[in-house]
Amino acid sequence: MDELLSPVSLVGIDAYWRAANFLSVGQMYLCDNPLLKRPLVLSDVKRMLLGHWGTTPGQNFIYAHLNRVIRKYDLDMIYISGPGHGGPAVVANTYLEGTYSEIYPNISQDEAGLRRLFTQFSFPGGIPSHASPECPGSIHEGGELGYSLSHSFGAVFDNPQLVVACVVGDGEAETGPLATAWHSNKFLDPATDGAVLPILHLNGYKISNPTLLARIPREELEQLFRGYGWTPIFVEGHEPAPMHQAMAAALDTAIVQIRKIQYDARVEGITGRPSWPMIVLNSPKGWTGPKVVDGLQVEGTFRSHQVPLSNPATHPGHLQLLEDWLRSYRPDELFDDQGKLRPELAELAPHGERRMGANPHANGGLLLHDLRMPDFREYAFEVPAPGVKGPGDTRVLGRFLRDVATANAEQRNFRIFGPDETLSNGLEALFEVTNRQWDAGTKPNDEFLAPAGRVMEVLSEHQCEGWLEGYLLTGRHGLFNCYEAFIHIIDSMFNQHAKWLKVTAHLPWRRQIASLNYLLASHVWRQDHNGFTHQDPGFIDHVVNKKAEVVRVYLPPDANCLLSVMDHCLRSRHYVNVVIAGKHPAPQWLSMEAADRHCAQGIGVWEWASTGDGLAPDVVMACCGDVPTLETLAAVSILRTHLPELRIRVVNVVDLMKLQPQTEHPHGLSDIEFDELFTRDKPVIFAFHAYPWLIHRLTYRRTNHDNIHVRGYKEEGTITTPFDMTVLNDLDRFHLVIDTIDRLPQTGEKGSYLKRQLREKLIEHKQYIDRFGEDMPEIRGWQWPG
Amino acid sequence: MDELLSPVSLVGIDAYWRAANFLSVGQMYLCDNPLLKRPLVLSDVKRMLLGHWGTTPGQNFIYAHLNRVIRKYDLDMIYISGPGHGGPAVVANTYLEGTYSEIYPNISQDEAGLRRLFTQFSFPGGIPSHASPECPGSIHEGGELGYSLSHSFGAVFDNPQLVVACVVGDGEAETGPLATAWHSNKFLDPATDGAVLPILHLNGYKISNPTLLARIPREELEQLFRGYGWTPIFVEGHEPAPMHQAMAAALDTAIVQIRKIQYDARVEGITGRPSWPMIVLNSPKGWTGPKVVDGLQVEGTFRSHQVPLSNPATHPGHLQLLEDWLRSYRPDELFDDQGKLRPELAELAPHGERRMGANPHANGGLLLHDLRMPDFREYAFEVPAPGVKGPGDTRVLGRFLRDVATANAEQRNFRIFGPDETLSNGLEALFEVTNRQWDAGTKPNDEFLAPAGRVMEVLSEHQCEGWLEGYLLTGRHGLFNCYEAFIHIIDSMFNQHAKWLKVTAHLPWRRQIASLNYLLASHVWRQDHNGFTHQDPGFIDHVVNKKAEVVRVYLPPDANCLLSVMDHCLRSRHYVNVVIAGKHPAPQWLSMEAADRHCAQGIGVWEWASTGDGLAPDVVMACCGDVPTLETLAAVSILRTHLPELRIRVVNVVDLMKLQPQTEHPHGLSDIEFDELFTRDKPVIFAFHAYPWLIHRLTYRRTNHDNIHVRGYKEEGTITTPFDMTVLNDLDRFHLVIDTIDRLPQTGEKGSYLKRQLREKLIEHKQYIDRFGEDMPEIRGWQWPG
Repeated sequence: MDELLSPVSLVGIDAYWRAANFLSVGQMYLCDNPLLKRPLVLSDVKRMLLGHWGTTPGQNFIYAHLNRVIRKYDLDMIYISGPGHGGPAVVANTYLEGTYSEIYPNISQDEAGLRRLFTQFSFPGGIPSHASPECPGSIHEGGELGYSLSHSFGAVFDNPQLVVACVVGDGEAETGPLATAWHSNKFLDPATDGAVLPILHLNGYKISNPTLLARIPREELEQLFRGYGWTPIFVEGHEPAPMHQAMAAALDTAIVQIRKIQYDARVEGITGRPSWPMIVLNSPKGWTGPKVVDGLQVEGTFRSHQVPLSNPATHPGHLQLLEDWLRSYRPDELFDDQGKLRPELAELAPHGERRMGANPHANGGLLLHDLRMPDFREYAFEVPAPGVKGPGDTRVLGRFLRDVATANAEQRNFRIFGPDETLSNGLEALFEVTNRQWDAGTKPNDEFLAPAGRVMEVLSEHQCEGWLEGYLLTGRHGLFNCYEAFIHIIDSMFNQHAKWLKVTAHLPWRRQIASLNYLLASHVWRQDHNGFTHQDPGFIDHVVNKKAEVVRVYLPPDANCLLSVMDHCLRSRHYVNVVIAGKHPAPQWLSMEAADRHCAQGIGVWEWASTGDGLAPDVVMACCGDVPTLETLAAVSILRTHLPELRIRVVNVVDLMKLQPQTEHPHGLSDIEFDELFTRDKPVIFAFHAYPWLIHRLTYRRTNHDNIHVRGYKEEGTITTPFDMTVLNDLDRFHLVIDTIDRLPQTGEKGSYLKRQLREKLIEHKQYIDRFGEDMPEIRGWQWPG
Repeated sequence: MDELLSPVSLVGIDAYWRAANFLSVGQMYLCDNPLLKRPLVLSDVKRMLLGHWGTTPGQNFIYAHLNRVIRKYDLDMIYISGPGHGGPAVVANTYLEGTYSEIYPNISQDEAGLRRLFTQFSFPGGIPSHASPECPGSIHEGGELGYSLSHSFGAVFDNPQLVVACVVGDGEAETGPLATAWHSNKFLDPATDGAVLPILHLNGYKISNPTLLARIPREELEQLFRGYGWTPIFVEGHEPAPMHQAMAAALDTAIVQIRKIQYDARVEGITGRPSWPMIVLNSPKGWTGPKVVDGLQVEGTFRSHQVPLSNPATHPGHLQLLEDWLRSYRPDELFDDQGKLRPELAELAPHGERRMGANPHANGGLLLHDLRMPDFREYAFEVPAPGVKGPGDTRVLGRFLRDVATANAEQRNFRIFGPDETLSNGLEALFEVTNRQWDAGTKPNDEFLAPAGRVMEVLSEHQCEGWLEGYLLTGRHGLFNCYEAFIHIIDSMFNQHAKWLKVTAHLPWRRQIASLNYLLASHVWRQDHNGFTHQDPGFIDHVVNKKAEVVRVYLPPDANCLLSVMDHCLRSRHYVNVVIAGKHPAPQWLSMEAADRHCAQGIGVWEWASTGDGLAPDVVMACCGDVPTLETLAAVSILRTHLPELRIRVVNVVDLMKLQPQTEHPHGLSDIEFDELFTRDKPVIFAFHAYPWLIHRLTYRRTNHDNIHVRGYKEEGTITTPFDMTVLNDLDRFHLVIDTIDRLPQTGEKGSYLKRQLREKLIEHKQYIDRFGEDMPEIRGWQWPG
């Protein structure tokens, strides 16, 4: 067999790999004597040994070989480290290529820098054991496993020159999100998107178990990946020299295949889904590490997952093993006396922004362009009087989003993601100007499918979230539209993204990225037809546990408010914005101008709905969310008719974070502002979209908290009518009126009489609904007092 | 080709299928005239049309054919309906086989019953459009997609005679959880477990998109499933007669293969993973429904997903189309004049408990046997004095669980699930008596792998949760051990299971099942070494949003409490129990007897740690969770030393739900009890395991709420020491003392002096940690006052 690497190249790449391995072991073990200038002593070794050796040498091997092809083909490439705890590898390699020291000058390219590099790893005040935000070149920390491939695809959409080398751990490959992410190749347009080169790192073990993919026959493994639509290239073995040759050949083959596919699509105009290459790297776990420790096999087993020599302090023999191990990389051949990588090795890394640690795609804020935004006011729904029926708030929004898509068609930096619900969520206007990107087969009768399009739909919330995160992290903009109940599927992915945002916000060299925007339509109150399984408004509770500097929650009461809110969200940076909106025809309240003003404040009195001529109110009726707003206004309507002397203040909340104290959230009202709205002592009847206790959680420090009475979803629901959903949860207009009267003894006999009437009405409602499966005609819709 | 079905059988099975299809269309459309005894008029049609036709005829087809093989082979089989909204099919079939009317006698086998059957579907007060709990034979509602295969495998573990026919929707197949669930075959022991027969329902479309698996070449699809380790059998077409023949042949082949595999394993003793059969049913979406409506193709496209004829009221032509459609099933051949299924058709269903709607495995409480429980007190950790160091609370628990496993080895009804963390979470004692069940390949150096074992480990929280749910739903017991942060991965699965429990608790014919027990070890406070990505205690917040009747949360402060709590959880029924415990060596507080008493109460004063001789306290120091308890007691120790005159009451909370009002949770303390513990007016310093606002949410209605000051995790953390984790979040002993003094002006100068000392201590701590990466020696561990 012809060997690809010349003897000189082979020696070079092997030395580079050894250098990375040496730095990796150093990070895990040493706090001094980084160049082994003297024999190792116990005080050179960290007292607490942390880190994960298992995945590291394989990733170092991959990184060194990627450097070679980047230079050979002048590739625009970034690296995603999927396996858990691969930190030592990415840190070592970005240090070797120079980017690490450019960002952290104290981690300099000399002996002192090496000492600090080693000491900081997995050390209090130091750096984590993952490819964390602190590590240049990373857009994927991977502390929680399973999202590397989705992030990679997100990164290459609309980046036709970019190649993402995505190392997939064979442990990670057992997760659900990763198992479906292989299908991302059916959504990639070779003409307008870049390429993902997955490298399955088949090293055989997780923490203490073997991996599934390593324990099925090779034939099955190959069938699996061919079945997923990939062309696997296998690199298998453990002898360094032939492995270098095999890996070099595999990468050359893969890059040539990628270029051919892209040439065919871009120049020859060939359509149809290609079979993209991938690499299966089958190498021993803990490769080049200690073979046997204390009589047990370590290299090539699960025992090399973490630190193979766990305690030199108590096992004197381990210190010698550690020194032998470190010296096996022959550091004196790799670094000069000052601790600088020898120039002939440094020369093997790519230069400037071609270095994977310095590639601007991995610091997406550098590449971020503002969206071109049409004026959202031009999409206003005409509201001649409050209560006029709209076509569905998201349908109004859809026209705005359509034109956002159009305005940014040229800069190709805006996409909408969702699990086959873009139409169902009322955003059909998008399909007037764009399509669903779909690169699998098509048939007659298909609608809105095209090889390239701004809408990404796959029935996997994990994929939608992962793609969008990858898209945002590389400097673009987007929106995830989802059924409210099922956004919980990605709770943990949201967690990790919010944590990433929190940490990167405090790294000066990391530029801010566009916000992650959720549009949760098809919400709890209109899941009357899909039933109990589709009813869950708890994503907000989950979101507000994360740092206030990062999370924002909006509940626009009507279409014009939704337009204003979404315009704001799409312009914002480095947040997670959760927007909850309805898709069904529903009453509209505010003119565009009023809506814009209201949303800018985030919370406010609706004077037009209130009574009492601005005098101190008897009661505050607060509402947050479209359905609660409707029910509150209908309740006010009843109260105005039957108890006209009552002074009612209607407060509507768009920006939920306004309720928190200023000290807890930057949007929070001051106590004075809060008291001005909610009074210091009057009853507050609060109709809330989600679980009622969240309002208590946000307001428990407020003066008037004891008087706040909240109605919301309390986990009651089934197949019924939308109005009955509110009745089942005591959020309906009748309950709200009864709640109000219960807190206003001054309503006396008149109040009691009205309560009795409404209780009868509720019984009638139940009877009517059981009989006809519909609401009584007179309680459909909203009525202002006659 | 020889045809399997005789002409008579073919006619019979086709008629049975037509009957199910007729009943399905009837459910979606009709409220009267169920036998079409007169021409259809508009008032026969429901005013609101809901439901999903697309998946229904295919599922009816499958069900009819399963009935045939159940009879032919006397199979013990249940049916899992994976595709969304397959309700009409499972309801129709359980009605045809008689189980539906046995459970719901008003849905009788006559015309009046048919009318009610039709009317109730997707109707307020009626039944959902899924295979909901109300439907006999269902253990899988499937409102949220992706868990059908995992549930199926859970059901057959330890049920060697059971076959689960699992219909997987090709939409659902795009989800992550389903994509990895195909690998469950590597965890199935043919000797001691039953079999899952997956039937991929490849009908091509989701709501408005094609499905991925339907748009890849047939060759790729076959490779994919062979790669997953299955032997696919394809049934493809749309002409009923040949499709019946093909399906009958496919099922016979599959059943014979399953029996052969089981015979080989059970009788011949052949080991090694077999390639189990599966079926790919490629039939048109909306099969046998309207072909073309309003000029658009419907059958075989996404347009048949929901109701193909959407509004007969406004489209007069639709009424005729509907009648034609219904009559195309020739109902007069299927039902007699009274509306009863003709006897020659009724005879085609299996009998008694062989009917899939009547199989007791689908109402697992019927088969539930109590666990044989060793006396947990015998596993007690000796606590001669508070503060003695234990080996790690979960390690103590591990010995108890080991013997639970042993005691139930014979009845084979207890399993432990986890993502490769059973060792890491300190439950290593289990491997003294059992193994990880693993049916993929093995190698030298593997540990604790065997074809059958009580421990199930796969790196997919989705799989662990889905398997366990299936195992519980079929009447067995289990435990899911997981890192606390990553349990969020299954937030939405927990939601759906909690909803299932809520609904089934109120169905008298559904028997209670064993509780779903989570053991969350490796919790937030000890993720100092793994860092920020591994720190999230928010699962509790998520859990407590669900119905109080279903959820329980326990935070045992030490090993003996953990034993007591887990004993209780394993005996309990129909709950979700969340138990959070530490795995690291940590101080122990209570003797077994005291722990048992404390856990029975769920909350209580620790007199031995309190001061003031039982007099009214100056301050209540409350704690919940192992680390907060340690920090609180250390704070009390400081206070006792420096401010010995203070009267301190220490309250420890094991059962978090004790804090809620009695009206909100059955475990909740009455206001009087709460006030007795927490006083009506004294400051309460509450150290909490999770996000602090949860305590406010639970206690905002209590008399003394305004004086409760909570410390907990506030999303601050990185790589550091365990003690520094508490400092970063102000939960450490020093902050707790400072908080206390701040609320007790009577501590005067002495208090101020102590505060200054502790602030200096905190600064020293930071300096020490930055310098040495360790805690100052004197603040390691716990000190009781000298």
